Amino acid sequence: MCIAEISATAKSASIQLATTKTSVKNNALAEIAAAMKQRSAEIISANKEDLTAAKKSNLAAPLLKRLAFDENKIADVCAGIDSLIKLDDPVGKTISATELDKGLRLYKVSCPIGVIGVVFESRPDALVQISTLCLKSGNAVLLKGGSEARNTNKILAEAISAATEKVGIPKDWLQLLETRADVAEMLAMDEYIDLVVPRGSNEFVRYIMDNTNIAVLGHAEGICHVYVDGDADLDMAVNIAADSKCQYVAVCNAAETMLVDEKIATAFLPKLKAALEQRGVELRGCSRTASIIDVKPAIEEDWSTEYLDYILSIRVVAGLDEAIEHINHYGSGHTDAIVTANKEKAAKFMDLVDSANVFWNASTRFSDGFRYGLGAEVGISTNKLHARGPVGLEGLLIYKWKLLGTGQIAADYSGSDARKFTHKKLR
Amino acid sequence: MCIAEISATAKSASIQLATTKTSVKNNALAEIAAAMKQRSAEIISANKEDLTAAKKSNLAAPLLKRLAFDENKIADVCAGIDSLIKLDDPVGKTISATELDKGLRLYKVSCPIGVIGVVFESRPDALVQISTLCLKSGNAVLLKGGSEARNTNKILAEAISAATEKVGIPKDWLQLLETRADVAEMLAMDEYIDLVVPRGSNEFVRYIMDNTNIAVLGHAEGICHVYVDGDADLDMAVNIAADSKCQYVAVCNAAETMLVDEKIATAFLPKLKAALEQRGVELRGCSRTASIIDVKPAIEEDWSTEYLDYILSIRVVAGLDEAIEHINHYGSGHTDAIVTANKEKAAKFMDLVDSANVFWNASTRFSDGFRYGLGAEVGISTNKLHARGPVGLEGLLIYKWKLLGTGQIAADYSGSDARKFTHKKLR
Repeated sequence: MCIAEISATAKSASIQLATTKTSVKNNALAEIAAAMKQRSAEIISANKEDLTAAKKSNLAAPLLKRLAFDENKIADVCAGIDSLIKLDDPVGKTISATELDKGLRLYKVSCPIGVIGVVFESRPDALVQISTLCLKSGNAVLLKGGSEARNTNKILAEAISAATEKVGIPKDWLQLLETRADVAEMLAMDEYIDLVVPRGSNEFVRYIMDNTNIAVLGHAEGICHVYVDGDADLDMAVNIAADSKCQYVAVCNAAETMLVDEKIATAFLPKLKAALEQRGVELRGCSRTASIIDVKPAIEEDWSTEYLDYILSIRVVAGLDEAIEHINHYGSGHTDAIVTANKEKAAKFMDLVDSANVFWNASTRFSDGFRYGLGAEVGISTNKLHARGPVGLEGLLIYKWKLLGTGQIAADYSGSDARKFTHKKLR
Repeated sequence: MCIAEISATAKSASIQLATTKTSVKNNALAEIAAAMKQRSAEIISANKEDLTAAKKSNLAAPLLKRLAFDENKIADVCAGIDSLIKLDDPVGKTISATELDKGLRLYKVSCPIGVIGVVFESRPDALVQISTLCLKSGNAVLLKGGSEARNTNKILAEAISAATEKVGIPKDWLQLLETRADVAEMLAMDEYIDLVVPRGSNEFVRYIMDNTNIAVLGHAEGICHVYVDGDADLDMAVNIAADSKCQYVAVCNAAETMLVDEKIATAFLPKLKAALEQRGVELRGCSRTASIIDVKPAIEEDWSTEYLDYILSIRVVAGLDEAIEHINHYGSGHTDAIVTANKEKAAKFMDLVDSANVFWNASTRFSDGFRYGLGAEVGISTNKLHARGPVGLEGLLIYKWKLLGTGQIAADYSGSDARKFTHKKLR
């Protein structure tokens, strides 16, 4: 099938899936978990092919680790599916109900978005997580995974399709795209596709955002800050800084810039330097930082760079207001933290920093769907609309308005003899 | 100020406005209403200038009526402001709260979107409604009204700015753009502006959608359908059809296409023809329609045309499924109605028609923020994300995640000795 056909059949399937009963969706999820276990030998062997090819092409060790899909990973995704089955069906919930007049009732009811295109990195477990989230929320999904995981993804998608078809779900609800060219074609399918979720490098996400009329949910950059306030516990601050920077440097919620209140800069910066250099972090500082500790000079560009590496920029600021201004100017609206013992300052920071995730005395690394308790996440959004921060099941839903009448017409509610609306809240 | 400065100052104001107390916002709203009354002579005289110029340039009568802003309109907008004051502040509501671990609590809290650019038609009351909705929801707003209303809009914006500045709201929260060129420049300000709401003609909305990276909320077309099912009360169906088509032909929620179940086509179509031709509606029908009543032939293009005029296309269908397919194929996802006495068929129609508003036994003309009881509306959205259908106060909000910790770091929750998250729902 060409991409237009794939998209059109996914759209048709999505209409059916939107009204599929909870019990059928849960049965389908159980069938998927069963298939993962039954076909584990087949899946692991496909993954070994991918791993062998990846090693041959010298894929970096951390990427190899993400690519691996073994018995443990299968057990993990099955546990994820089991918890998804236990969750309430989010579709068909009445969000509000209003009587407009006698015999004329308006309901705002949750429903799936429709067809979602997800482009994800080379973690095969992401395929299972994303597709089961889409299934539970009643959305059809077009998936394009990392090419390194080609064989694993193929068998996983096939197993999921077969398992869901067994319980009567139209098989086209999940389809796998094969190439980058497929993705480019998909971006033109705004007639059929309602949302694109790109996960991957900055450049890739920007490319997607700039090349489609379809709504895009995601984040291009994660320029996350930790601000150490004058009232901070300095040991806690060092600990949070080290974790935010180093616990996993290659991810979007890792910190890139420290902002340090001038009141404690002299006491704090040497401690920070000791802790981070021990972990192999290169420090780049503003001139005031450089007057206290030995660092490379930071240039203007550093404040808006997502290093995704063992590099940290440091700036001494006059206090809370300057920190907030810096973050709102240079940040990417992802995750920003304040370390302080002062409750009022923390509240002000969290109110005025215009980011999806604002933290007080906690590492930026907590901004993640699993850690938030959302189950798996489809992605992390720095959009200002629809869904912000880690996006789980709820971000895959929208609503429709259902009006139930008994023959009412608008003319009766206008003019001199107009009937009045009651607008009585029923729920 | 140039548009970049206007946008940047609006962004700064929006950060402050986001944390402005409910009482201050309500005082500001009261001051606006007071200013409308105090300055009514001035406002009405500015409106007379606009009306005189519009008459000279031969503006059509219905448009003149929309442009007029007199004592009655002022009383109406003041009544609207009074009800807005009475509404709960939608900002700062805790949507959910989760304990991630002891001393680590996550809150999902509603907040304003930020800066909203609204381009609206020549109704000066729209300026007051939109800006007061933005104020109550804590958003800054850039406004561009119809040029016919230039003088009225100028004095209204000035009066609103002055009234809100009096109670300490940064005056840049509301700014008026003057020209179409200003709008074009605004569309490039994605650094400062978070949402654009275009109201107006198809072409204009499409132009906006195609020329900005900023999120756009709105609708280009309203191709609304009424499906008359085999189990319909035919008199009710005629009544609903006539209202949906004729109660106000120039608006997006007017019906453009009738779908008629073949079972009742012979009985229904003559009744429909009589009622609509009496109201001056030109009928265009499919071949099966033409075999029953005398109509112009409908061509393929008719099914996807928004006439906004006294023209209706009619198609005979084999039943509910074909009606649903037709609507999902040709419709614009705006508002579609079924007329039937059969509850199951109505439910199926409302589930499977993929539109923002799906009605049973009611005129399509009810899809409107005021009629829905939302207060005023910012616009009507056919998007599938964020807000769908009439958009009132709620559509102007998003949320942020606030994490309150006591020094937690992610490293403690990973590896072999990992602490477990409690994920206890607090709310």
